[in-house]
Amino acid sequence: MEAVLDYLKNNRERFVRELCDYVRFPSVSAQPQHRTDLVKCAEWLVNHCRGIGLETTLYPTAGHPVVVAKTPRKAGKKKPHFMVYGHYDVQPPEPLELWKTPPFEPRIEGTSLFARGSSDNKGQNLAHLKAVEAYLKTGTELPCDLTFVIEGEEEVGSKHLAQFLQQHRKELDVESVVVSDTGMPSKKFPALTYALRGILAVEVRLDGPSRDLHSGIYGGTVDNPAMALCQLIGKLRDKNGRVAVPGFYDDVEKLSAYERKEFKRIPMSEGEYKKLMGVSKLFGEKGFTPFEQRAARPTVEINGLTSGYQGDGSKTIVPAWARAKLTFRLVPNQNPTKVRAAIFKQLKKLCPPTVRMTITAGHGGEPYIVSPTSPLAKAALKTLKEAFRREPILIREGGSIPIVTQFKKILGADTLLLGLALPDDNAHSPNEKFDLDCFEKGILMSTHLWQELPKAVSAS
Amino acid sequence: MEAVLDYLKNNRERFVRELCDYVRFPSVSAQPQHRTDLVKCAEWLVNHCRGIGLETTLYPTAGHPVVVAKTPRKAGKKKPHFMVYGHYDVQPPEPLELWKTPPFEPRIEGTSLFARGSSDNKGQNLAHLKAVEAYLKTGTELPCDLTFVIEGEEEVGSKHLAQFLQQHRKELDVESVVVSDTGMPSKKFPALTYALRGILAVEVRLDGPSRDLHSGIYGGTVDNPAMALCQLIGKLRDKNGRVAVPGFYDDVEKLSAYERKEFKRIPMSEGEYKKLMGVSKLFGEKGFTPFEQRAARPTVEINGLTSGYQGDGSKTIVPAWARAKLTFRLVPNQNPTKVRAAIFKQLKKLCPPTVRMTITAGHGGEPYIVSPTSPLAKAALKTLKEAFRREPILIREGGSIPIVTQFKKILGADTLLLGLALPDDNAHSPNEKFDLDCFEKGILMSTHLWQELPKAVSAS
Repeated sequence: MEAVLDYLKNNRERFVRELCDYVRFPSVSAQPQHRTDLVKCAEWLVNHCRGIGLETTLYPTAGHPVVVAKTPRKAGKKKPHFMVYGHYDVQPPEPLELWKTPPFEPRIEGTSLFARGSSDNKGQNLAHLKAVEAYLKTGTELPCDLTFVIEGEEEVGSKHLAQFLQQHRKELDVESVVVSDTGMPSKKFPALTYALRGILAVEVRLDGPSRDLHSGIYGGTVDNPAMALCQLIGKLRDKNGRVAVPGFYDDVEKLSAYERKEFKRIPMSEGEYKKLMGVSKLFGEKGFTPFEQRAARPTVEINGLTSGYQGDGSKTIVPAWARAKLTFRLVPNQNPTKVRAAIFKQLKKLCPPTVRMTITAGHGGEPYIVSPTSPLAKAALKTLKEAFRREPILIREGGSIPIVTQFKKILGADTLLLGLALPDDNAHSPNEKFDLDCFEKGILMSTHLWQELPKAVSAS
Repeated sequence: MEAVLDYLKNNRERFVRELCDYVRFPSVSAQPQHRTDLVKCAEWLVNHCRGIGLETTLYPTAGHPVVVAKTPRKAGKKKPHFMVYGHYDVQPPEPLELWKTPPFEPRIEGTSLFARGSSDNKGQNLAHLKAVEAYLKTGTELPCDLTFVIEGEEEVGSKHLAQFLQQHRKELDVESVVVSDTGMPSKKFPALTYALRGILAVEVRLDGPSRDLHSGIYGGTVDNPAMALCQLIGKLRDKNGRVAVPGFYDDVEKLSAYERKEFKRIPMSEGEYKKLMGVSKLFGEKGFTPFEQRAARPTVEINGLTSGYQGDGSKTIVPAWARAKLTFRLVPNQNPTKVRAAIFKQLKKLCPPTVRMTITAGHGGEPYIVSPTSPLAKAALKTLKEAFRREPILIREGGSIPIVTQFKKILGADTLLLGLALPDDNAHSPNEKFDLDCFEKGILMSTHLWQELPKAVSAS
C-alpha cells in the first residue's frame, strides 16, 4: 500500500490537470447541440481509462454512449466484484451571464476548481479512477475486481442505462455499487448517504388563442394562457408548503425518531443554511426542519416558466401559450407512476375549459433507502474516517440518482453513496466548483475502499 | 376636387410601393437595438413629407424623434386648423418563427399587405399623407390648415410626446385632432370610435435564493420564486373574470342602455368572434358580451412570464427569480394613478415574506370618451359614408391611445378616431397585415374630410 500512497502523493498535480481536461468538454446532455461534445468527452474518458490500464469499451446507446472500464481480471481467481458508477454528462450552464468565468474553462482559486461538471460528477468519478490507477501503475494487487460504468445521461434521467444494465447483467454480478455523486455537510463531516429522494418531471403547456393577440383590442374576451397557468400551477402547493395533489402523500413513510435525531447532528445552523441559500427567510413544509424538508420530504418545484413577451420594455399581448416545467421530488415509499397518475388527474381537474392543456411526463426516478448498518456500510464508514480523519455522519439526501434503484432491481446490488461534494459546490447553479481537498481525500478513500470492502464481503 | 380624385386614381400603385418602403424599417421602439432604425425611418418620413410639399421638421426628444409636417400656410388668411396624429414606431415582431415571411419584408397577397407596422400604424398615417399630397400636387386649395404629428414612441407609451405638445402648444391651436389608429368591424362597417380603454403596465419580479439552486438538494426549504409568482399573480383575476384588486372598479362608469344597444349592431356573431380568436370557448367578465368586454370593461392581462430554465429538456433547479409583465386596461372614469396605487397595495399585501418583490410601473394612459354626436363627429361620419359607401357605425374600442387624453388636456382638442384596421389585421401579432382597399378608401376618406370638417367648424 505504501507504493500506492506514494504514487498518489507524487502525481497529485497531474491529477488536477487531468480533471481540468475532463471538465473542458461541454457535455450537456439536455441540449441537442452538444451531442458531439458528449461523444468527444466519452472518447477522452475511454482513452484515459486505457492509459490507466483498464480494459475499456465505449457502448453506444440510443442516447449518449456508456463508458465501461474493467480492471484486468486474473484467470481462475474469483475475487469480490464491485462496480463504480459515475456520469460524464453535466447540467446546462445557463444562465451564462452569472458565471464569473466561462463554465467550461476551469479556473482554480484557493482549493476550488470552478467549472460546470467539476463537482457533479466529473471530479468525483475521476477520483475513483485515480485510486485504481495508483494500484495498477505500481503493480499493487487489488483485492477485488472493479468495473467502472460511466454514463452520459444522468442529468436527463439515465434513459438508456436500465437497458444497458439488463444487457450486461451477467458481467455485472457485483457485490455492491459505489457511487460518489452526493455530498457531505462539510470537510469535517465525511458522509455516507443511505437515502435519496426520487423525481418526477412534468411539463404543462396551456394553449389559448391561435396567435398572440393585441391585449387592448381583444383582452378580456379570451382566457389568458399565462394567467390560466399561474392559477393552475399555483394551486399545486398549499400555504403550508405541502403538495396539493389528492393522494400525493398516501405512501410517504414516516421519519423515525432515530432519523430525526441523526438529522439534528448536521453541523449547520438555520442561520448558516439561510446564508448558504441567499435568502432572509426559509419556506418549507410545516412541522419539519429544513434538513428534513430537503432530504426526507417530497416537494413540487417550478424549474422554468415561459410565456409571451420576455424582451425589453413591454408588448401588449394576450400570449398564445404558456408553459411550466415542473419537478416533483419523491421520498420512500412513493411510486413515481402512481404519483404521476395523481398529478395528471389533478391537473386535468383544475384545468379550465378555456385553454387546451398538454401534459408531458419527463424523467422519473424512484426514491431510495438502504440499511446504514450493513457490513459494507460499516466498511465504507471506516474508509471515510481513514481518508478524512474525522467521524463520518449518516445522511439522507434530497437529490435523486434514479439509477440507484435500477442497480437494486436489475443487478440486485445495494449502493454505497460516498459523496465528495460540499454544500457550496453550486451543483446545477452558476459557478459550480469542486474542492481539491475533497478530490485528494476522495482518491484516498477510494484507495482504502478496495481494501475494506472485500474484507466485509468475506466476513459476511 | 376632380383633379384630386384623378390624382389618387393615377398614383394608386406608387402609393402602395411607398407604403412598402415605409414598412421596411424595423422601427421597434421597445427594443434598444433598433434605435438607429427609428431615426432612419423618421428621416425617410421627413424626406417623404418634403417631397409632398409639406414644411417638415424632425424634432429630437429624449427618446425617438417626432416628425412634424405642415401644409404651406397662406399669409393673412386664417383657416380652420386640424392636426393629424400617427406613429411610425411598431410593436416587436417576436415570435419571429410564426411569421410566414419576414416581418420587415412586405408581401402582398390578394388585397393584403403583410408586414409589421403595415396596419399599426404606418399604412393608416400614410393614407392621410397621400390625401394631402393629392391636394398639393394638383394645386387644389385646402379649406383648412393641417399639421401632421407623427411620433416614434406610441408603442412604448408616448413617453415624450406630452412634453413636445406642451412646447408646441401655440402652433398646435387646432380645432380637432384626427387619428387613424383604431379599427372597423369589417369593410362594410366603417367606424367612428368614440371611446378607448386606458392602460397601465406593471412588471412584477420576485427574487428568491441568490442563485439558481439544485432542486433536489435544496428544494423544499426555500420558496420557489416561480411558484410564489404564480400564486401571487393568479390572485389578480377571480373566477368571474374580474380584476381582484380592492377598489379597482370604484370609478368604472356604467354602460348606458344606448351603448349596449349600439354594441349589438356589431356585425359579428359569437361564433365568428371565437373563430377570429382561434379559441373554442371564450372567457371574460360575467354579465357582459365579448364586444362589451373587450371595449368597455377593464381587464388584467399577463403579457409575458419569465423564470428559470426554458430550453430543451429539463434543468432541475429552484430558479433565483421570476417575472411577470402585466397590463391592465382601464375604462372611463378609471384613473391610472389611483388604480396603480390600488394594484401596488394589493401586490404588497399578497406578496409572501419569503421572496423579495420589485414592482415597476410602466406606461399608463387614461381611458377616453367623447360625444359621438358633435358637429365634427357628424361630419366625420359623413366622409366615412362617402368613402366606403356604407352606413358607418359608432364604436368603443379596447385598445389604448394614451396620447388622445393628452390632446384634450394640453391642446384642448377632442380627437376623431377614424380607424382603418380590420379585425384580422393581426396588430401586435405575427403576420400583421393592412388591407389595401382600406388604404385606398382611407385616402379617399381623408380627402373628403378636409372638405367637411372646416364646414362643421364654421357651422358650429
